[in-house]
Amino acid sequence: PLPMACIILEVIIIILFGALVQYDDETDAKLWHKEIANGSSNYDNDFYYRYPSFQDVHVMIFIGFGFLMTFLQRYGFSSVGFNFLIAAFALQWATLMQGFVHGMHGGKIHVGIESMINADFCTGSVLISFGAVLGKTSPVQLLVMSVIEVTLFAVNEFIVLSVLGAKDAGGSMTIHTFGAYFGLMVARVLYRPNLDKSKHKNCSVYHSDLFAMIGTIYLWMFWPSFNSAVTAHGDDQHRTAMNTYYSLAACTLATYGLSAVVAHDGKLDMVHIQNAALAGGVAVGTAGEMMLTPFGSMIVGFLAGTISVLGFKFLSPILEQKLKIQDTCGVHNLHGMPGVLGAIVGAVTAALATKDVYGDGMADVFPDIQSGDVEASFQGIRQAISLAVTLGIALLGGLITGFILKLPIYGAPPDTICFEDGIYWEVSLGSHEELTTVRTPDEAEKLNA
Amino acid sequence: PLPMACIILEVIIIILFGALVQYDDETDAKLWHKEIANGSSNYDNDFYYRYPSFQDVHVMIFIGFGFLMTFLQRYGFSSVGFNFLIAAFALQWATLMQGFVHGMHGGKIHVGIESMINADFCTGSVLISFGAVLGKTSPVQLLVMSVIEVTLFAVNEFIVLSVLGAKDAGGSMTIHTFGAYFGLMVARVLYRPNLDKSKHKNCSVYHSDLFAMIGTIYLWMFWPSFNSAVTAHGDDQHRTAMNTYYSLAACTLATYGLSAVVAHDGKLDMVHIQNAALAGGVAVGTAGEMMLTPFGSMIVGFLAGTISVLGFKFLSPILEQKLKIQDTCGVHNLHGMPGVLGAIVGAVTAALATKDVYGDGMADVFPDIQSGDVEASFQGIRQAISLAVTLGIALLGGLITGFILKLPIYGAPPDTICFEDGIYWEVSLGSHEELTTVRTPDEAEKLNA
Amino acid sequence: PLPMACIILEVIIIILFGALVQYDDETDAKLWHKEIANGSSNYDNDFYYRYPSFQDVHVMIFIGFGFLMTFLQRYGFSSVGFNFLIAAFALQWATLMQGFVHGMHGGKIHVGIESMINADFCTGSVLISFGAVLGKTSPVQLLVMSVIEVTLFAVNEFIVLSVLGAKDAGGSMTIHTFGAYFGLMVARVLYRPNLDKSKHKNCSVYHSDLFAMIGTIYLWMFWPSFNSAVTAHGDDQHRTAMNTYYSLAACTLATYGLSAVVAHDGKLDMVHIQNAALAGGVAVGTAGEMMLTPFGSMIVGFLAGTISVLGFKFLSPILEQKLKIQDTCGVHNLHGMPGVLGAIVGAVTAALATKDVYGDGMADVFPDIQSGDVEASFQGIRQAISLAVTLGIALLGGLITGFILKLPIYGAPPDTICFEDGIYWEVSLGSHEELTTVRTPDEAEKLNA
Repeated sequence: PLPMACIILEVIIIILFGALVQYDDETDAKLWHKEIANGSSNYDNDFYYRYPSFQDVHVMIFIGFGFLMTFLQRYGFSSVGFNFLIAAFALQWATLMQGFVHGMHGGKIHVGIESMINADFCTGSVLISFGAVLGKTSPVQLLVMSVIEVTLFAVNEFIVLSVLGAKDAGGSMTIHTFGAYFGLMVARVLYRPNLDKSKHKNCSVYHSDLFAMIGTIYLWMFWPSFNSAVTAHGDDQHRTAMNTYYSLAACTLATYGLSAVVAHDGKLDMVHIQNAALAGGVAVGTAGEMMLTPFGSMIVGFLAGTISVLGFKFLSPILEQKLKIQDTCGVHNLHGMPGVLGAIVGAVTAALATKDVYGDGMADVFPDIQSGDVEASFQGIRQAISLAVTLGIALLGGLITGFILKLPIYGAPPDTICFEDGIYWEVSLGSHEELTTVRTPDEAEKLNA
Repeated sequence: PLPMACIILEVIIIILFGALVQYDDETDAKLWHKEIANGSSNYDNDFYYRYPSFQDVHVMIFIGFGFLMTFLQRYGFSSVGFNFLIAAFALQWATLMQGFVHGMHGGKIHVGIESMINADFCTGSVLISFGAVLGKTSPVQLLVMSVIEVTLFAVNEFIVLSVLGAKDAGGSMTIHTFGAYFGLMVARVLYRPNLDKSKHKNCSVYHSDLFAMIGTIYLWMFWPSFNSAVTAHGDDQHRTAMNTYYSLAACTLATYGLSAVVAHDGKLDMVHIQNAALAGGVAVGTAGEMMLTPFGSMIVGFLAGTISVLGFKFLSPILEQKLKIQDTCGVHNLHGMPGVLGAIVGAVTAALATKDVYGDGMADVFPDIQSGDVEASFQGIRQAISLAVTLGIALLGGLITGFILKLPIYGAPPDTICFEDGIYWEVSLGSHEELTTVRTPDEAEKLNA
Repeated sequence: PLPMACIILEVIIIILFGALVQYDDETDAKLWHKEIANGSSNYDNDFYYRYPSFQDVHVMIFIGFGFLMTFLQRYGFSSVGFNFLIAAFALQWATLMQGFVHGMHGGKIHVGIESMINADFCTGSVLISFGAVLGKTSPVQLLVMSVIEVTLFAVNEFIVLSVLGAKDAGGSMTIHTFGAYFGLMVARVLYRPNLDKSKHKNCSVYHSDLFAMIGTIYLWMFWPSFNSAVTAHGDDQHRTAMNTYYSLAACTLATYGLSAVVAHDGKLDMVHIQNAALAGGVAVGTAGEMMLTPFGSMIVGFLAGTISVLGFKFLSPILEQKLKIQDTCGVHNLHGMPGVLGAIVGAVTAALATKDVYGDGMADVFPDIQSGDVEASFQGIRQAISLAVTLGIALLGGLITGFILKLPIYGAPPDTICFEDGIYWEVSLGSHEELTTVRTPDEAEKLNA
C-alpha cells in the first residue's frame, strides 16, 4: 500500500498544481520585471528578506524534527526517513490547502517564498503529531494523517488569523498547540494496551541520544528564525528573533536546573535536555513579535522550561496510565503545554499594547488596533478565543483521524514490534555484524601496522 | 607521497595566487569606496545577494557530500576526511582555472563571492567523481584526479556557457553530467576484477546509514540555494529556488513509492532514500531558472526519482557486470541519468521560451533571445549541443585520467583492503574496544547509582 | 548544587535584564518607525546585514564547539550538553557585562543583532577554555568559570578595542588568545597528577570521531561568517569572509601534509584533522578585514596549520609533562598559538596600511589612521600592545579562577572517573545493551523476512 499511497498522492498533487498554482508577482519573470519597470529594486523582492529564515526553518523541519526523534535505539531509519517522507508530502499538500483557504487570485494559488515558509510551518505541525505516535504507526497511516491534519490546519489557521484577527507569527497556537493536541488525540484513539511488549525497544542507547542532540541543537539555534520568518520587515523580524533567543537561553538554564532537581540522584536526564530546553521557543511563538521585552521573554522561557520538565516527570506517566495516551516523544510537554502558555502570554501581551509603547510600529503588529477597529483589550480576547478554537479543532480532528487510522488496512505494526525499523526497512546484515563481528586484537594490530 | 603532494600543490597554488589573484571591485577597499562615492549603497554589494546561498552551497560540499559517503561501515574517516581534503584543494585550484578561462582582467584574476560559489560548484563535480571511485583510491590519486578534472571542468564550462551560450545555472550538465561520466570512466579504467575480496566491507551498518542521512538531508534542503546561487538577482533567484524545492518534494514521494515497489518484500531501501530522493535537484539544474512552473518542476522531479531508483535496482548491476564499472555510490543514478534528464528538460524549456511568458525578464534568463541574436528554438539546440560536448569531454577526460591514475606510484590500496580506513588513518584501539570492552552490569549499575 | 547554580544565576540575570536592558533603535517598534518616518528603509535595519552571519556563528558555538568535543568515547553527553548549558548561560551574562563596559545609554543596555553576535563571541571564548579542562570539571565549576571569564573578557575587550583602539573583528586576540591562555592557566592550577587513572577513557572510538567531525566541518565552513560578522558593511564583510575562506583552504592542505609527515607510518591522525585544519580561521581573525590579499591569507593559513600540527605532536606532551598543563582538546594548538600568530599578523598588516591601498575604505578599517590621529606604524604598535594585555589578563584571570575552582565545593569528579558521562547523566541501560544484547542470526533473519 505504501507505493500506491505515495504515487497516487503525488499524481493528485501534480494535477492540482498544474490546474491551480501560479508564480506570484515576485517569482514570475514578466510580472516582477513590470515592478522593476515601475521603480522597484531587486532588493524589494521578498526573497532577500525571507530566504535565509526559510532555510533555517527548512533545517528545523528536516534535520531538527528528523533527528530529534532518532533517540529510539532501533527506529532511527524510520524517525529520519518517515519524517522526510511526510514532510515532503505535507509541504506540497499544505501549499494547496493554505492556498485554497487564504484566498485565491482569479482562481489561482500564487506561490513564492512566503507560501514556502507557511507550507513548512504547516508541515511542522504534522511532525509534532508524528512525535506523539512515533514507533506505533505505519508510513501509510502517517500519510493519511497528514492529508487530514494539513487540511484542518489550514482551516484552523484561516479562522484564527483571518476570521478572528489574532496574531500568531510563530504559531504557539496554530502550529504547536494544534499539532500537539491533534497528535495526542490520535494517540489516545490508537491506544495499545499491550505496548509494553515492545517496551525494551522504546528507549535510547548512547549513540542514538547523540544523534537526537543534533536535532535538539538545530531546533534551538534556528527557533529565532522560525518565529520571525513571516513577521513584518524591519524591527518586527529583528525583535522577534531576539525575543526568541533570550527566551530559549533562559529556558535552557531552567531545564538543566529542574532536570537535576527531579531526576534520580541529581543527575541530568537526556530526555529533558533534548526536549524541555526548546519549550522557550514554543512559548514565545505568539508574543515574540510583540513588545514583550527581553525581560518578559526570559520569564516566559524560564516558565516554559520549568513546566516542560515537570510535565515529563509527573504528567506524562499520568497521561499514559490514567488517560491512556502513549505520547512517545512527550509532545505534550514540549509543544502542548508550552503552546498553551504561549497563547496566554500572547493574549495578555496584546491586551496590554499601547500606542505609547508601539508608536507607528503598531500598524505592523496590531493593524486593527492602529486603525482603531478594536481596543487592545479586545485584541487580547480575540487571542484567547483563538486558543479555544484551536484546541477544539485539534481535539475533534484528532479524534476523527484516530478512528480513520484505526481501520485495519494500513499495515500498522503489531504490539510486539513497535519501535523497530526492521519491518519497514531493509536493515543490512551489517547492523547485526556491527555488534558481533569483532576484530581480534591481532587483526586490529595488523591494520594499524 | 601524500605529504609531498599536499605541500607541493599548496605551494604552487600560493605562488600562483600571489602572481595572479586580486580582489574584485566589491572586495577591494579602495575600489568599492569609489563605487560608494559614485552613489552605490553598501547593499548593492553582491555579498548580500549571494553570501547566504554560498554558505548553503558550502554546507552541501563539505557536510552534504562528506557525510553522504559515510554509509560505508569502515570508511567514515576517509569519506569525510578525503572529501574535506580534495574539496579544500579543488576550490583553490578551481579559482585559478576558472579565472584563466573565464577572462582575466589586465592579466589578473578577480575574486569575490561569485568566484567563491563557482569554485565550490567545480569542487562539487570532483566530489561526484570521488563517489564513483570511493574506497578504491588513495588520497594522492584523488588529488591528481582533482588537478586534471578541475582543469577540464573549467574548459568545458567555458565552452558550454561562453562559446555555445547555453544556460546551466545549477549545473545539470557542467556539474552533474560532467562529474558523473568523468568519474564513471575513471572507475572503468581502474576496474578491479577481484574487488569482491573486500565485499564484506562494501556495505553499511546501522549507525553509518544514519550518518549518511545527515549528508542526504543537507543536500536535499540546500539544493534550492545551489541552483539559485548564481542566477540573476530578483525573480530569477527566487523562482529557481522555488522550482527546485517543488522538484525535490515530488522526487521524494516518487523515490519512496518506487523503492517500496522494487525492493525485497515491499521494504524501503536506505540506498534509494539516501540518493534517489536528491535526483530532483539535479534534474532542474538547467531549467530551474526558466519559467518551468511548479507543475513542470514536479513532473521533472517525479521522473528523476523514478529513473534513479530504477537505475539503482536494475542498471547498476548491469554496469558492474557487463561494463565493468564499479560505481561505489551509484553516481550514475544520482548524477548521471538525472543530469542528462536535466539537460534535455533545459533544452526543451529553452526552445519553448516566448516573450509573452518571460516579458522583460527574458533579458536575465536568455539575453541572446532578448537581444534578437537567436531564436528560442536555436537556444534549445545550443543547450543540446552543450550536453553532447559535456559528455564528450567528461568521457575522454575520465579515460585519460584513469590511465594516469593507474600508474603504480600513488599507493592505491590492494583489492583485499579497499573500503577500509585503517590503511590511511590511525584508527584508535578504541574502535576495537568499542565493540569488546563491555561494562559488566555491576559496573553500569554503579555508575548509574 | 547544579540546580541551585542554574536557577540562582538565571534569576539574577532576569532581574538585571529587567532593570537594565532595552531594545535598541532597530528592534524597538516605536523608535524604528521613527527612523522609517525619517526616510530609512526597512533594509537599513542592521538585521538584514548581520542576521545570516549571526546564525552561522550560532551554529559554530552550539554545534561546532559542542560536537568537536564529542571525540571522547564516554563523554559525548557532557561535551554537547555542558557546551549547551554554559553557552546558554554565557551569552546572557555576556550581554550584561559587555553592555556595562561598552557604554550604557542613559543607564540602560541596548540590545540588537550586534549585541547578540558579540555575546556569542564572548561565549566562544569560554568554550575554548572549556576545551582545556574538558572531562575534568563539574558543570558547577564550568558555570563559575563562565561567570568570571565572561566578566574579564568584557574588560579585556574594552581595553583592547576602546582604550587601545586596536582592531580585532574576528577575535584572534580577544577571543582565541584570551580563551586559550585563560583555560590553560585554569588547567594548570587544576593539575591532576593521577589523571592517568582515567586514561583509558581519554580517547576516542570510531563513531565518536565521526561525531567530532560534524563539529570540525561546521566550524570550518562558517568561520568566514564568524570573522566577518561584525566588520563594517560592504567591502569589509565581503573581504573578511573571502580572506578567511582562503586561509582555511590553505591551512587544510598544510594540515593533511604535516599530519602524514609527523604521524606514525605516514598515516593521518584524526586529532590533527579535527583541530589543526581550523587554525587558519583563528590566524586571520585580526587581519582578515584588512587588505591582507588572498595570497597573504593563504600564507597565514599555511603557517597556522603547520604550527598547529607540530604543536599537537611535539609541544602538547611537553606542556603536560614539564608544565603540568593537561590540555584535553589541545586548545593551545588550535587557539593559543594560532591566536598569537593572528595577533602578530594583524599588527604587521596594520603597520603596513597605506592610503594608496585602502583609499576611502581606510575609514572603515582604520578610522584613526583615516582621521590622521595615528600613523599606520603606531596602529601596529597598538595591536601588539593589545596582544600583551590580552595575554596578561588571560593568564592572571585564569590563575585566580583556577584557585577558585579548586575549592572542594563544586563536586569535581575524582581522578578515576574523569571523562565519564555516567556521573552527571542518567545513562540508560541501553548504552550497555547496545554492546551486549546482540540479536542472534535467526532473530535478524526473522526481522528481515
